[in-house]
Amino acid sequence: MATAFVPSTTLRLRPYSTLRCLSFYPKNLTKPYPVFPPLIRRSPISPRRFFSSVISGALHSGERTKSELAEKQKGQMGSKVGEFRKKLKIVDVKGGPDEGLDRVGLMIVVAGWVRTLRAQSSVTFIEVNDGSCLSNMQCVMTSDAEGYDQVKSGLITTGASIWIQGNVVPSQGSKQKVELKVNKIVLVGKSDPSYPIQKKRVSREFLRTKAHLRPRTNTFGAVARVRNALAYATHKFFQENGFIWISSPIITASDCEGAGEQFCVTTLIPSSREAVESPVDAIPKTKDGLIDWSQDFFEKPAFLTVSGQLNAETYATALSDVYTFGPTFRAENSNTSRHLAEFWMIEPELAFADLKDDMACATAYLQYVVRYILDNCKEDMDFFNTWIEKGIIDRLSTVAERDFVQLSYTDAIELLIKAKKKFEFLVKWGCDLQSEHERYLTEEAFGGCPVIVSDYPKEIKAFYMRQNDDGRTVAAMDILGSLLVEAKEKKDLNIWKVDWMS
Amino acid sequence: MATAFVPSTTLRLRPYSTLRCLSFYPKNLTKPYPVFPPLIRRSPISPRRFFSSVISGALHSGERTKSELAEKQKGQMGSKVGEFRKKLKIVDVKGGPDEGLDRVGLMIVVAGWVRTLRAQSSVTFIEVNDGSCLSNMQCVMTSDAEGYDQVKSGLITTGASIWIQGNVVPSQGSKQKVELKVNKIVLVGKSDPSYPIQKKRVSREFLRTKAHLRPRTNTFGAVARVRNALAYATHKFFQENGFIWISSPIITASDCEGAGEQFCVTTLIPSSREAVESPVDAIPKTKDGLIDWSQDFFEKPAFLTVSGQLNAETYATALSDVYTFGPTFRAENSNTSRHLAEFWMIEPELAFADLKDDMACATAYLQYVVRYILDNCKEDMDFFNTWIEKGIIDRLSTVAERDFVQLSYTDAIELLIKAKKKFEFLVKWGCDLQSEHERYLTEEAFGGCPVIVSDYPKEIKAFYMRQNDDGRTVAAMDILGSLLVEAKEKKDLNIWKVDWMS
Repeated sequence: MATAFVPSTTLRLRPYSTLRCLSFYPKNLTKPYPVFPPLIRRSPISPRRFFSSVISGALHSGERTKSELAEKQKGQMGSKVGEFRKKLKIVDVKGGPDEGLDRVGLMIVVAGWVRTLRAQSSVTFIEVNDGSCLSNMQCVMTSDAEGYDQVKSGLITTGASIWIQGNVVPSQGSKQKVELKVNKIVLVGKSDPSYPIQKKRVSREFLRTKAHLRPRTNTFGAVARVRNALAYATHKFFQENGFIWISSPIITASDCEGAGEQFCVTTLIPSSREAVESPVDAIPKTKDGLIDWSQDFFEKPAFLTVSGQLNAETYATALSDVYTFGPTFRAENSNTSRHLAEFWMIEPELAFADLKDDMACATAYLQYVVRYILDNCKEDMDFFNTWIEKGIIDRLSTVAERDFVQLSYTDAIELLIKAKKKFEFLVKWGCDLQSEHERYLTEEAFGGCPVIVSDYPKEIKAFYMRQNDDGRTVAAMDILGSLLVEAKEKKDLNIWKVDWMS
Repeated sequence: MATAFVPSTTLRLRPYSTLRCLSFYPKNLTKPYPVFPPLIRRSPISPRRFFSSVISGALHSGERTKSELAEKQKGQMGSKVGEFRKKLKIVDVKGGPDEGLDRVGLMIVVAGWVRTLRAQSSVTFIEVNDGSCLSNMQCVMTSDAEGYDQVKSGLITTGASIWIQGNVVPSQGSKQKVELKVNKIVLVGKSDPSYPIQKKRVSREFLRTKAHLRPRTNTFGAVARVRNALAYATHKFFQENGFIWISSPIITASDCEGAGEQFCVTTLIPSSREAVESPVDAIPKTKDGLIDWSQDFFEKPAFLTVSGQLNAETYATALSDVYTFGPTFRAENSNTSRHLAEFWMIEPELAFADLKDDMACATAYLQYVVRYILDNCKEDMDFFNTWIEKGIIDRLSTVAERDFVQLSYTDAIELLIKAKKKFEFLVKWGCDLQSEHERYLTEEAFGGCPVIVSDYPKEIKAFYMRQNDDGRTVAAMDILGSLLVEAKEKKDLNIWKVDWMS
């Protein structure tokens, strides 16, 4: 069975822009990322001196105010490598149950990027974000703070990377419990006046042209954090249940399940710099005019994998329960921006299990990861709920909390036929379930519970699915839920695609 | 900075065979995996009936002896999806501190594959492995056990997949603390008489031709488990330290660090079935005879990524600390079997950090993952220590336990010049350190401690490395250790390759 890892669908951002952010490539590649923006180099102070003297020690970790790094061992060259410590981040301060009140009075260091800067008559407010959470740290500065001249002179602007040392104090504002009273501010990297991500909202279309700065926006930051949480929760779920992760090969000579067009991987075409200008005649050919694969890297045609399933199965029949989680590629012949050429797919394979185990595993996995992001990405999910997709938290909570219902295809058809409802598509045993049918089952027949329909007619499923005793159906299942049905209606990928092989 | 994830190097299996097992492709692709071996289908009993009646319920989980799956909700179609439970595996029984003695008297279920079967006059011993650990479960059977006829008739042989219910009893043998007294045995999948993995040792070269069964050997099973542990430990380490995982794009139009030849990804060459016979003339060309990229999937040349670093950097300058962990591809023009076309690489990027933080992070990561496998893969590591690479546990323990020493390149050169030792390669400021130099530093100068050498001459490092104040050196570092030096001598990949960009 396989599940495509598509948080973009779950979160229901418009796929066009989010998929790019999720590092999936839609049909048209954008330009290469520009080289790392030279923010640091443009600092008027020598950036090197800067790092090595001005902020020495204090820069390393939020709560250390003097260097605790390795001391030189006496009488000998070389010294101990310093201890690695988790950095104190804004999420550690503001994300706790007390929202930072437990740290009032402490001196801490925050390093991040200026989101906004408001100079008032006596105080300056700087909103700093370090990407650890959606929230900024509000830093309040008076003219006696060290480094204030850089703020006054306009050197520190939106987008600049800064290092601030200050005291945690209760905030006067209603937006946050605590803020930082600045003792010292250091400009690490100056921001250009053309810095494109200002306070006003910018379109995701515009941000596509600023791909190197896009992760600094609320939306893209939140997507990255939620996606990270989903990926880690995926590993946690399977590892905690005794599954072994298998990295199936990406470059392969085999096709799997005939799953659509494959990308060819070759060295017969020169690498990037010359490819555009490369003549077809330069491709080696045999005397019969065929492509001469003996001169290719692999000495035969090779392709990007469309599924790790065959590999995973060989491991499942040796290690019992395994999963893959890696990129997969489909050269699907479609012109919409919703088709992904590249996506990360999860393919669990259970040994000594039947369709009921499969359904139980799929349900448990879905509930685990959904619960994980609701618990661990509250602020980001609230942001999505408010700005991107109203109601997403309620709908996800339904998935996480309610019992899933299982139902055979045959029973589902019977229910639909009995339903006092006029469907656009005729309901009849043997037909594929349409979105309107799936919607009826989940929303009306089972009052909002996600529904798993199993044992489909063999004619509408793939040839390799395990045939049931009745000779008419196969041991396959699909999970339906309002979230998933809507995704399907919008022709996004299925979130959880499950096959069952005997 | 970047680290290549190459447990094969650490474990020092011969790269030729292990790398394949690790799903890395060396230069020559082998044939596609044969289709899933039809073990189940060959069962003389109808496999379907079999699953649905003979073992119903008991098959689902080790400790459940009757079905606890969802009961049908009365008066309504559909029923609750069953609870997903972690299966009881052999590692859960034998891997605990009591090696299974805590479960004596309990009835459990084991499902796995027959490693060996010895019929004695009154009892039959079946060694069953389920891949959860290296150890088999010794199952002892007398003629009164249900299903004994299948054993007696020779139906159950090496390689067969079986399901056994029995009581945990103290073992008479010295090899294990407990064994299973069989009440009932069920043949799930018959093994063919030609099953190639019998008790005698077979070469890894031979196993390359049986790729679909290879994971059932001790070596490949152990590699898969250790590799899984290393991957999970990698995620755990970075997640626990506040890093965010980024999945950088695999298909890219950009080259990164000019890191050698790239593979071209294209749909201009037809997919697998037709590629071999494809004429060069079928590739679309412009009127000038150039490859007509406008007809390709991406409408421009596209390549497999050689590094996610540029992507990771854009996220690091927004989210602070990030890491990539995904496949990377190099079409290195080398004819040895040791060059990898495909490997999984870890690329951590730290914001607001300097070379000391970098060294501390690299050290902590290495120690964490090494400690993790020493703690969690004891049996597999013992196996490697005995059969594959003597001394590996001691050498890894050194890495995990001893303080790493840091040393500038300049100091290292001074030490080497002062050393009372004749080197083959001349030591002089500006030269690359050779293996003999690295070996001297770690083994003699610092008594076996891993050593990090930093601040190399700019001439011998990449152009993009951060220049130090002295104008002569750059903020780069390499970790040396006897383990790592040996890997380098054998021209395997570096385990931890670190770059530092300003």
